[in-house]
Order: sequence, then structure tokens, then C-alpha cells
Amino acid sequence: MSSLPSVSVSPVALLVQKFGGTSVADPTRIRDVADHVARCRRRGDEVVLVISAMGKETDELLRLAHEVSEIRPGREMDMLITAGERKAVALVSMALHAAGVDSESYTGSQAGFLTDTNHTNAKILEVNADRIREALDAGRVPVVAGSQGMSTDRDVTFLGRGGSDTTAVALAKVLGADACELYTDVSGVFTTDPRVVDTARKIHRISFDEMLEMTAAGCPKPAMRSVEFAHRHRVPLHVRSAFTWEVGTWVTEEDPDMEEAVIRAVVADLSEAKVTVTGVPDRPGIAANLFRRLADADVNVDMIVQNASEGGVTDISFTVPRLELDQALQICEDKRAEIGAEHVTSGQRIAKVSVVGAGMKSNPGVAATVFETLANHEVNIEMISTSAIRISCVIAHDQADRAVQVLHDVFELEKTEF
Amino acid sequence: MSSLPSVSVSPVALLVQKFGGTSVADPTRIRDVADHVARCRRRGDEVVLVISAMGKETDELLRLAHEVSEIRPGREMDMLITAGERKAVALVSMALHAAGVDSESYTGSQAGFLTDTNHTNAKILEVNADRIREALDAGRVPVVAGSQGMSTDRDVTFLGRGGSDTTAVALAKVLGADACELYTDVSGVFTTDPRVVDTARKIHRISFDEMLEMTAAGCPKPAMRSVEFAHRHRVPLHVRSAFTWEVGTWVTEEDPDMEEAVIRAVVADLSEAKVTVTGVPDRPGIAANLFRRLADADVNVDMIVQNASEGGVTDISFTVPRLELDQALQICEDKRAEIGAEHVTSGQRIAKVSVVGAGMKSNPGVAATVFETLANHEVNIEMISTSAIRISCVIAHDQADRAVQVLHDVFELEKTEF
Repeated sequence: MSSLPSVSVSPVALLVQKFGGTSVADPTRIRDVADHVARCRRRGDEVVLVISAMGKETDELLRLAHEVSEIRPGREMDMLITAGERKAVALVSMALHAAGVDSESYTGSQAGFLTDTNHTNAKILEVNADRIREALDAGRVPVVAGSQGMSTDRDVTFLGRGGSDTTAVALAKVLGADACELYTDVSGVFTTDPRVVDTARKIHRISFDEMLEMTAAGCPKPAMRSVEFAHRHRVPLHVRSAFTWEVGTWVTEEDPDMEEAVIRAVVADLSEAKVTVTGVPDRPGIAANLFRRLADADVNVDMIVQNASEGGVTDISFTVPRLELDQALQICEDKRAEIGAEHVTSGQRIAKVSVVGAGMKSNPGVAATVFETLANHEVNIEMISTSAIRISCVIAHDQADRAVQVLHDVFELEKTEF
Repeated sequence: MSSLPSVSVSPVALLVQKFGGTSVADPTRIRDVADHVARCRRRGDEVVLVISAMGKETDELLRLAHEVSEIRPGREMDMLITAGERKAVALVSMALHAAGVDSESYTGSQAGFLTDTNHTNAKILEVNADRIREALDAGRVPVVAGSQGMSTDRDVTFLGRGGSDTTAVALAKVLGADACELYTDVSGVFTTDPRVVDTARKIHRISFDEMLEMTAAGCPKPAMRSVEFAHRHRVPLHVRSAFTWEVGTWVTEEDPDMEEAVIRAVVADLSEAKVTVTGVPDRPGIAANLFRRLADADVNVDMIVQNASEGGVTDISFTVPRLELDQALQICEDKRAEIGAEHVTSGQRIAKVSVVGAGMKSNPGVAATVFETLANHEVNIEMISTSAIRISCVIAHDQADRAVQVLHDVFELEKTEF
């Protein structure tokens, strides 16, 4: 048996609790959330809620915008999308009243979120949480609309998909909360996707660094931005279920006493595509020129691999989100003549499989084990990239499940308790 | 042929155009509105839009609130309901961009609407339209969310159902607009309901006083509050269709040159019920006591009739919205013993039929004509109330259509052109 996570909150704590879309998808779910908050209040905790739009509401608003107009300025998209969270906070606050909990709802602007003017993906500049503090002092539960704020131009802004996590972490930081609880539809972070590997285990505690590598490797929750933000501001995160209410996964500072597993998790990402530019002249600045152009066009380049130069030319491969592939190809084609490259090719049927674990820093054999294990199971590796605590391999799309299973097995993740 | 309405706007005008829910009910309707605004802009007009929530959205938000919670604080209801207009303004602004019209959307708060704290039915205290003026000066069409503002407590407020008309009139006033156009799903104000009387005619011009009497008598559009407001601030209203875009009905100051029709319209209201308190001691203050109590409970008493006293007791009858009947009866029963009355009875199957026209001031025979006409057609009158320019009769519910038809006929409204 492992020991219980060493992070715990004091019996009476200030908690920021964020509820995602599935947690407030319908009136029954909203009442469940209110009952949970009422239990926390009876226990004596102070609670601040951050709420996302209900269920698929954001998608529906996007669909409506596409039906209405082929021109969709960011400012207007933000006005539209933020209506979803506004609805949700009002309904949650009503349900709290019905559960005997005094509460008030706040838009991002009312909650003091000042952002830049980068519509549809605004960054928080400052949080002036005076109204939230006043509500807490008055014994109320503030219910804050997630992922929104007011810009320096006094316009409504949206922090982007997954921005509610960021709102919650920012509030936890500014209020000095004991923890930020991210309630979702899974019961925590797992050693790998339990739908793929039935021996996957819930991780009880993970460091920020490992969690960041996992989200970068394609683990969908929590949102990377919120983990980075929590890490920077040392806000302990608790990723947990809004359906079973069981204890989930704590994401915290690395702790010297932490039982150090070599590998903590295996993550697969099937959302990317690969671009290869062949016969690139091996001169300084060529690659920089190409990737600057891609960055300017907001193409999110992930892995980059450049093969050893042969005869003065080299091949450059990189991965991008599949939705951005066409744009990336267009840019590479436009640049091809200028940089004197030969061909631009692409592959959509790829998967990125990553193993993540802080323990690999002191275990130099991990990479070799990964490559051998994949080779033994006839999984061909197309690209490799590594960090201090992560090894990622691009492989064929239809071999992803097998690769995840054999890597999970070889590192015996089903046996370890973290 | 009548002359054209003498009210007209200059070739280049500043127009506040309000679009109701049916006018923006779906993407096609929203694009139609944008095309219309683009035509106005090409003509050279400056345009400010005020938009209601799409179609039945407000009803759906109310239904959702009822499903979620039996306790629905006004502050939270306002946060919820105003999300509807926020969605609509963003979509209309996008459609304007697609139609080649530069525009920006504004919440009530951003448009400078400061209100009192009377949630769900807030009153406008002040309109600081600086941002709207700036947008106009920059050549943009501001798209303002109707029926909302920010309270002196910095909370989101809703001005109530029909409040978008009030928003539009208030903006027209503060911007010094040439006219306030209320676009709706009917093509104007009619001499009576065209669904009941097929010879009903559109009224081209009507005075504020007459329009107010018509709305008080049950004419559903425009909202009475906006007509009162427009009257007080001398803002010419133009009630017109967002489907045919034809010229509608102008509501303006009375004009000495205006062709004075004796009767301008016949209006039926089937939404009220009647309460009668019999055997009330005929002492000063008894009726006042009862009606104060009803007013304190927010029961909207409409017609009040007290019969001549006989033997020291009198009967008092009044009408209330049918939805408020139970409450009114309860209050009357509670008061019955205290005021020494005999019985409280009620009738739900009633209709109020009214004839309205400024011309009746100089035509003393109108009331007699109304009573005779109804009597000749065996319509029994249960209650009568009059103002200087209106005569209302309460009759049996199932005789309303016949009463409207014969009154429309006797005053030859099908022949007159206003």
C-alpha cells in the first residue's frame, strides 16, 4: 500500500472549485453541484466557484455564428461565447440558493479579470478580486463565469477553450486559496487512458513538471495553461470527479520525499499530422526562416526533427495539429523555392506516443527500453523527441493502442501506486 | 386618398432601429436585418440598433431557471435573462460585417445604461452614451443589447419584458435621433386586430395619447412604457415590419392639422378577470384601504367601478390580469371581515372592449353610440370606464369578436385613412 498523498487541506479551507461543462450540463447536474457545495460549506470550508458553459453550449454558439456570418470578428465572437458562462453562473447561483447556500454570480468583468485585447484567446493582465472577497466576507459563495474578462479597451474577452481552469487558478492565487479543485468528468489523471489499457491506474499525486509534459504530450485535462499558471504561482491543483466526488489526483510541487517512479504515465496523441520538407540546403537560418513564418501564421508546431546533413542538404520534419495541416503545407510550399528545398510531403495517419516521468532523469536506460519495446512489437518509429522527463515517438496511427499497452506493461504502471 | 403622413425624416437621418425577437429569430432573419441596415447606410443614414433576444429564447431561459431551482433571486434571473440579448447583438454585429457594414455590439452596461436595483424590472436612471457616440463618429453601427443595464450596485439588470422598446427610445432621446423605429412582426398599428375584422386598416399616424390609451386597452405593441417615455421626451416612433419593410405607423405629438377621426381604433383585451366585492359599507377610506393593499401586493388593478350607494352599502368591481386573480381574491377575502363587506365574487370569462380616439373629445355622442351598438347586437355591458379619449366596456368573453366587429363597422373605420 502506498501512503496517502501528503498534500491535504486544513479542516477549514478556502477552496476554489471549478466545474466544467459536463458537470453543469443539465438542471440535475447543476443541482448536484449545488448539493456538493452545500456539503463543503457545512464542513466549514469557504468556497469560490468557477463555472464553464453548460454541456455543448459553446459548440452550439460557434455553430450559430457560422450559420449567421462568414465574417466573425473576435470581439463579437467573445461577446457571443461568454453568454454561455453567464447563463451557467446564474443557474448555479439559483441552485445554491435552493440548497440553502447564499451566493451571487459574477461575470469575468465583475470578478475583476482585466485582460489584453487579444480576442478569442485573451491573456489575464490583472485580477482585482475585491467583489469576490467582499462576497466571501459576507458569507456568500461567489459563482464566477469562467474563461472571461474585460479588456483594457473595456470590451468583453474570452480566454479560450479550457480557459475556465485558468480563471480558477488565477482566483486561487489572488485569494490565497488552499487549493484549486478542477472538477471534471473523469476521476483524476491516469497512468494512461483507461479506455485503451484496462490496467490503467489513477495517479494520486504528480508534480507540475510531469503534468505539464503530459498535457504537452496530449493528455486533454487539465488545460496546459492552467497547469503552467498553477506551477508558476504554486497553487496546488486537485483534479477530481464531479460525478463520484471521490478524491482525485493532486498536482503539486515536486517533493523530495515523493516515491520516485521511473515512468508515471503513457500518453497518446492522435490529433497531429506530420510535415516533411526534403532536400533543404544545410545553411544557417533556413530552418529559422521557415518556423518564424509558421509561428507568424499561428501554426502550432510541436515536434521538430532535423536529420543529420548529407551532402549539404537535410530533411526537416515537424508535427502540427491536423486542423492546421493545410495552412502549414501552404506556407512550406510558398517557402520551398525561396529556401531551395526539394519536396514537401505530409502524413496524417500518425500518432505521438509519450512516456513521462521525473524518475527518468536518474535512469538513463529509459529511452533504450522504449525503443526496444516498440521494436519488439514491430512498431516502427518515424520521429523521436525527448525532454528531461519525457520521451515521445511518432508512429503509425493504427499502432497507437498497441504501443500504449506494451509501454504501460513494460514499465509495470499497473503495479505502482503513486 | 389621404395625404402622406406629415412626419418624415430628412434624407440623411440618425435612426435608432429596434428589432424584436421574431425579427432575429434565426440566422436567415438576422441576415435580413443586416441587409436592411446596409440599405439604410447606403442611403446615408446613421443607424443605432437595439436588439431583443432571439425568438423564444427568453421563455426558454425562464423555463430552464424553473427547472433548476425553486428559488430564483432577481439578481440571478437578470444575469440569466440578459445572456439572451448578448447572444443576439453579437450575431447581428457579425451579420453586419458580412453585409459590409462596420459595427460593434454593446451590452446594456457598455452602452451606458445605469439603472436602479429593482431586479427583473429595473428603471433607467441615466444613459451615458459616450461609447455609442464614439462608434457613430467612427462610422460604425452600434448594436445595443435591449432591456438591460447596470445597477447602482454594479449588478446586471433587466428592464423587463418589452424593455427593448424602452432601451431604443431612451437611446433615441439621448442621441437626439430623428426617429425611433420599432421593427416587429406586424406592419404597424391597426384600427383593430386584422385576424378578427378583415376590414381592419393600418393607421398611418396616431398621437401619443391615443397610442397610450390603446396599449392600456390591451393593444400588445408597442410596449406602453416605451410610448410613455417617447411621449415625455418627444421622440417620434415608427412602428413597422421587419418582414415586409414597408412604411408602418408613426406615433407622434398631436398635430392641429391632423385629420381628426372621431374613433381611431377598437381594441379587445381578453387577458383580464373581474372581481366584485358586494355589500361594502359606504364609508370614506374603505375602498382606499382595499386598493392600497392590492397595490402593495403588486396586483395590477385596471378598471374600477363603484355602483351608487343604496342603503349605506355599495358594490365595488374591478378587473385584474387573470394571472393575478387568485392573489386578488385572497386579499379581498382577507379584507372582507375588516371592511364589513358581504361577498367576494369573480368572473374569468370576460373581455374588455375599448374604442379610442382623440376626436371623441369634441363628439359627445360617442359613448351613446357605443352602448346602443352593443345593445342592438345583444351584447350585455357588465362594467364601463372612460377617459377623455377612450370608452371601455367589460362584456362576456365569447362576445368580444362580435363587439369588435360591430364597433369597427359603426364608426366606419374600414373607410377612414389616417
